[in-house]
Amino acid sequence: MDERVREHAEVLVDWSARVEAGDDVVVSVGPDAHELAVAVAEELGERGANLLATYSSDEITRAYLRAHEGEFDEAAHEKALLEEADVYLSLGGGRNTSATADVSSETRRNHREARREIREQRYDTRWVSTYHPTRSLAQQAEMAYEEYQEFAYDAILRDWESFAEEMARMKDLLDEGSEVRLVSEDTDLTMRIDDRTAVNSAASVAYDSHNLPSGEVFTAPYATEGEVTFDVPMTLRGETVRNVRLEFEDGDVVDYEAEQGESVVGDILDTDEGASRLGELGIGMNRAIDRYTDNIMFDEKMGDTVHLAVGRAYDACLPDGESGNDSAVHVDMITDVSEDSRLEIDGEVVQRDGEFRWE
Amino acid sequence: MDERVREHAEVLVDWSARVEAGDDVVVSVGPDAHELAVAVAEELGERGANLLATYSSDEITRAYLRAHEGEFDEAAHEKALLEEADVYLSLGGGRNTSATADVSSETRRNHREARREIREQRYDTRWVSTYHPTRSLAQQAEMAYEEYQEFAYDAILRDWESFAEEMARMKDLLDEGSEVRLVSEDTDLTMRIDDRTAVNSAASVAYDSHNLPSGEVFTAPYATEGEVTFDVPMTLRGETVRNVRLEFEDGDVVDYEAEQGESVVGDILDTDEGASRLGELGIGMNRAIDRYTDNIMFDEKMGDTVHLAVGRAYDACLPDGESGNDSAVHVDMITDVSEDSRLEIDGEVVQRDGEFRWE
Repeated sequence: MDERVREHAEVLVDWSARVEAGDDVVVSVGPDAHELAVAVAEELGERGANLLATYSSDEITRAYLRAHEGEFDEAAHEKALLEEADVYLSLGGGRNTSATADVSSETRRNHREARREIREQRYDTRWVSTYHPTRSLAQQAEMAYEEYQEFAYDAILRDWESFAEEMARMKDLLDEGSEVRLVSEDTDLTMRIDDRTAVNSAASVAYDSHNLPSGEVFTAPYATEGEVTFDVPMTLRGETVRNVRLEFEDGDVVDYEAEQGESVVGDILDTDEGASRLGELGIGMNRAIDRYTDNIMFDEKMGDTVHLAVGRAYDACLPDGESGNDSAVHVDMITDVSEDSRLEIDGEVVQRDGEFRWE
Repeated sequence: MDERVREHAEVLVDWSARVEAGDDVVVSVGPDAHELAVAVAEELGERGANLLATYSSDEITRAYLRAHEGEFDEAAHEKALLEEADVYLSLGGGRNTSATADVSSETRRNHREARREIREQRYDTRWVSTYHPTRSLAQQAEMAYEEYQEFAYDAILRDWESFAEEMARMKDLLDEGSEVRLVSEDTDLTMRIDDRTAVNSAASVAYDSHNLPSGEVFTAPYATEGEVTFDVPMTLRGETVRNVRLEFEDGDVVDYEAEQGESVVGDILDTDEGASRLGELGIGMNRAIDRYTDNIMFDEKMGDTVHLAVGRAYDACLPDGESGNDSAVHVDMITDVSEDSRLEIDGEVVQRDGEFRWE
């Protein structure tokens, strides 16, 4: 086995999920993530944790969803599993990133809505999502397989502890601030962040961070005003989406357009009330991610980018007991801030053309 | 997709597991059983059942078990899942039938014992085990892949309803009988079956039958006396075992030997008290299974064979409220009865040289 696969498993189990003896761990395995699952199983065995592997295949989901008619039930057995789980590790990695392209958006929406409580249960665990670099992900990134492996492991196998110290500077600025303004070509957006706590997303549940790789600082903005253009392309629900422009008034999206994939954007915004408000403002700081690979978990952490998500806000950003924006969706969109851009907090520039104030 | 895969899924979901709308179904997917899992997902979607797929990989099990030291916990999350499950479908099919060959028998035993309650929960569902014909199973059978597929589907895609009527004759004879005697070369064994109910194993939970393919009639004997030689070879825990000879007194194995794999047999018999008593007597009647393929689910149903299992007895064979032989194991061993053999019930021959009384 490639030594990097073992290192990936070790970072995931130790740094990211903080697995301990006796933990009940669910490992969700993508069809091509088998090798990483084997390495994770070894780490879990060494720590005396309990392992149940689930199988997460988009082809199975597609077959099930297309055959299903009418309302979806909540799956009581899956809910019971997650209620008892301490840790949930998602090892993504399929064979075709477009495997669910022909499932209708209405069916997806109904299915997502029926699974709301199951998702909440998962968010109550020490959950971490990661990807095993597969050929399908390499293809999505328009990269050769070995080239993609190097890219992915550079982003994943970092010295997370010292990286966390660097990101703490950005967190402190956001925690002390009240208003954020993002200015770039075709973008001038203000958001309130009073009383919100930024997450130093250092790829560990100990930092309220649930992605590996991570490398961003994010918070939960509100009262958004102005307009923003997301110039980094992405694939949403199997379709390419380019140059999405959103216009906000009093926190809500009042107008949207996109050069490509506009109907997907419309479907997402229509999911529920919270889907047309922001749930997240994130500052990408992982400079090992130096190119766009059309995988949101990597893209949104890219150095010199800022992303915003419509939909669900993360509890970690909110004052205790306060519920932020709620939605069945959380969809991130990204804008490049490496040129002709500035990010201000309470009128002070904290990042200009990609460079942070302390650099 | 090969039409036979769809038919397999349909037989499994409808005939075998009797899945209905709202059922909470666990589908355990082997690493190479993906295609069957997709077909099963479609069937479950059509019926409005709820699907959770688990991933059953011997390589994951090996990695976990070899890394684990000390006692195993019971996995509370897996138990909770099975407590809520109505149906459990095991879709076997890996890439290497010897994938756990280097796990110590002590570790296996400890792990099996810790999972006793989880197994019981699974047996409380409408559970069905089947195999997707894979290259690894073809290799185990010493057959070409396409040849093996034809063999497997011939055994699986039968007219189960009419086959069940034929097997009912054997069940009636066993239900009315008190003592069974098996006589063959190197075998002369008697077993009591008073008050026991035979299972007409027609590959459906409606018949208390949990294998697809099936095609056997079995009961739970006791007070076994005499000796038996199992001349059909098999692979137990990754090792080849040949010509096992067991000697019984008053229900217990008092002596054993084997031409090959004797230590595996010894390990099994040592598992616990019940492991050295019989849990099952089965009459193989599926003549579409016309050759030995070194896969117990198929081999034990082979026409013109009889098999005995040491270990756990199935509740379906026992009077209400009575507990039969209990053990963490259930290991079947097979003897060919096509020549120089007879099976008697209360002194009357019911099968001679493979031919049943009614034939």
